[in-house]
Amino acid sequence: MALIVQKFGGTSVGSLERIENAAKKVAKAKEAGHDVVVVSSAMAGTTDRLINMAKQIQPVPNPRELDMLLATGEQQAIALFAMTLQKTGYKAVSLCGWQVPIITDDVHTKARIKEIHTKKIKELLAKGYIPIVAGFQGVTKDGEITTLGRGGSDTSAVALAAALKADVCEIYTDVDGIYTADPRIVPNARKIKKIAYEEMLELASLGAKVMQIRSVEFGSKYGVRIHVRSSFKDEEGSWIVPEEEIMEKVAVRGVTSSDKEVQFTVVKVPDQPGIAAKIFKALGDAHIAVDMIVQTVSVDGYTDMSFTVSETDAPHAKEIVEKIAKDIGAEKVLMDPNVAKISIVGLGMRSAYGVAGKMFEILAKHNINIKAISTSEIRISCLIDRKYTELAVRALHEAFIEDESINFVGNGT
Amino acid sequence: MALIVQKFGGTSVGSLERIENAAKKVAKAKEAGHDVVVVSSAMAGTTDRLINMAKQIQPVPNPRELDMLLATGEQQAIALFAMTLQKTGYKAVSLCGWQVPIITDDVHTKARIKEIHTKKIKELLAKGYIPIVAGFQGVTKDGEITTLGRGGSDTSAVALAAALKADVCEIYTDVDGIYTADPRIVPNARKIKKIAYEEMLELASLGAKVMQIRSVEFGSKYGVRIHVRSSFKDEEGSWIVPEEEIMEKVAVRGVTSSDKEVQFTVVKVPDQPGIAAKIFKALGDAHIAVDMIVQTVSVDGYTDMSFTVSETDAPHAKEIVEKIAKDIGAEKVLMDPNVAKISIVGLGMRSAYGVAGKMFEILAKHNINIKAISTSEIRISCLIDRKYTELAVRALHEAFIEDESINFVGNGT
Repeated sequence: MALIVQKFGGTSVGSLERIENAAKKVAKAKEAGHDVVVVSSAMAGTTDRLINMAKQIQPVPNPRELDMLLATGEQQAIALFAMTLQKTGYKAVSLCGWQVPIITDDVHTKARIKEIHTKKIKELLAKGYIPIVAGFQGVTKDGEITTLGRGGSDTSAVALAAALKADVCEIYTDVDGIYTADPRIVPNARKIKKIAYEEMLELASLGAKVMQIRSVEFGSKYGVRIHVRSSFKDEEGSWIVPEEEIMEKVAVRGVTSSDKEVQFTVVKVPDQPGIAAKIFKALGDAHIAVDMIVQTVSVDGYTDMSFTVSETDAPHAKEIVEKIAKDIGAEKVLMDPNVAKISIVGLGMRSAYGVAGKMFEILAKHNINIKAISTSEIRISCLIDRKYTELAVRALHEAFIEDESINFVGNGT
Repeated sequence: MALIVQKFGGTSVGSLERIENAAKKVAKAKEAGHDVVVVSSAMAGTTDRLINMAKQIQPVPNPRELDMLLATGEQQAIALFAMTLQKTGYKAVSLCGWQVPIITDDVHTKARIKEIHTKKIKELLAKGYIPIVAGFQGVTKDGEITTLGRGGSDTSAVALAAALKADVCEIYTDVDGIYTADPRIVPNARKIKKIAYEEMLELASLGAKVMQIRSVEFGSKYGVRIHVRSSFKDEEGSWIVPEEEIMEKVAVRGVTSSDKEVQFTVVKVPDQPGIAAKIFKALGDAHIAVDMIVQTVSVDGYTDMSFTVSETDAPHAKEIVEKIAKDIGAEKVLMDPNVAKISIVGLGMRSAYGVAGKMFEILAKHNINIKAISTSEIRISCLIDRKYTELAVRALHEAFIEDESINFVGNGT
């Protein structure tokens, strides 16, 4: 007998029929003798509808009141979910975040879970009940309702699984797993059977939209085995597990792209010590994350400096950088939104030779110019012209994943 | 400076525009220097929509889960209400029932308020905030969400006004006050300026649909001055106040009718001691309230016994009465749903002569047969054929309220 946390996303509970379908997954696990705790999102569309109402009143709604409003979406879903299980003869009880309680900090609309009290849920399980917990929401120590941000129900589920020491956290969603690339771009993309937390974190932060990144961090920190699978099919999905469980450490687990970046170039910067620090400190003070920094070789005492920031931060970054460029006597600031970041991710990269070289070679073969490069231990990213995004992803996927004759072995990138 | 509780019903917050209109009422009181606590219902239609969803799952939804579901309606309304006040520069904070907290018993879907903690609301008021409290809902000592039944927001408001010792509880609704009769039946019906709790209780329980009866009981018990008024007009509405405040104790304050009753007649009951007790005890044991009992004079050792029960209780009552009729050897049981109860209500009745006689005379003049009579100290009710309902109400209204030449003075009915 295992303890399973089952999380259902908005589309999986998007109608009464779909809730009934989700309830069948719960019933099946229960019938197999397992204890089940359900975490549910709001019915698809509900959260957007509520945000839209709030924005009609205040373009930037008061975050505390927005949380009060949005939390009703999950509350409705869990009540309907509990009724659906009861109808088929199961004992079920819905619980809001504050009833568990799931304690968070007080940063409304993007709160972080601090603590989960498991006493009530354990008592319910001991009495044979299926607790149905509202995802996405928590409560502060002062009794204020909070929400965890978009995709927060994933984090609720994984955190709950961690707190309950559940055997697995099943994430039911409208896709059937995690793929080696976006199947809309790469028709040959394959479902990944097992992926390490670290790989998933790189993929999630680089544009794979399957899971909220914080939920994977939670899973990694507490070793929660996560199973991402379809709520509409019965087959196995993808497992996100500790690295030790992964036998086959391939060099490239997946290929991903992100077009949410903007590249800035500060042209003709006087090449003096402390100038780069000036620019990046100002951006850091404004809480703007900077990526893919490139500085050209100094010519005649001048250098060009470029870097990327996220699309949302770009207008703010522009203000800051233009002011500093003036102060330091740079010639001008260029802003290029037509870029994309293409990445390959894989644990095996740590011990394989020639992966980076192979990547550059493939891009060059397609006449794709590399504007900047950044790497982590298990990732290589290249900034390219946005119009080549799909071509690059397909070419890299074909070379590193579809072509099984390539085999990277050894130590070092 | 006064402390005012303002309650807005579903139609008064039925759209974002209407919430804006309601917020203006709040702002006006605040600008006049008063402290204001708002109690809001769910937006019109929300509760019915949610009940409908629940019934699609379970014809009789689990009451605990239904409360969980329904409580979201008010929670949405208070968040939107708070945002609307904030937009115009007021400090507002929404509070769910459990956040106040409003403690109730654990009878889901018709819970009763046990206790209201006022500390949080008083702190907010002291800091200049307008607390926006969710009506209709509470929480048990064990942290379970409860609701107070249809019209429960009135009770929330009056109970809150009592707990806070507010100067007045304003009930904003889609009618502009309490009338001497239903204006749809009697075009000459007048708005009542002041009415005593006791009169209002008789009118409410007899079919005037303006306020939930329990809220008036609360008002009476704690002496809360209630002002029922329109959310769409600025003029004064009707005040529900202690009897001492009413100078003009008229014999008939209002005329009302109810067609939600069914008359039972047990025919040819052996006229022996204890037989009536047998019938009414069985009905009482089944929690069925009985009204308007009439026993005909005994002829040849037999008597006919009739009484009314509410429409909803009628099927259950029928079962019980038919079984007992058989046991006691009565001939048969007749059930007549085509009846209506017509009532006149007024404090002055206590000390006026001839009111009952006048009522019977007026009905007789219109050839309306009286099937049964019941009275309280301040009310006289007659059971009549349902088809005469409107005629009877109009005739009684004309005679007792419109015709000012009639004047009942003295002691005794």
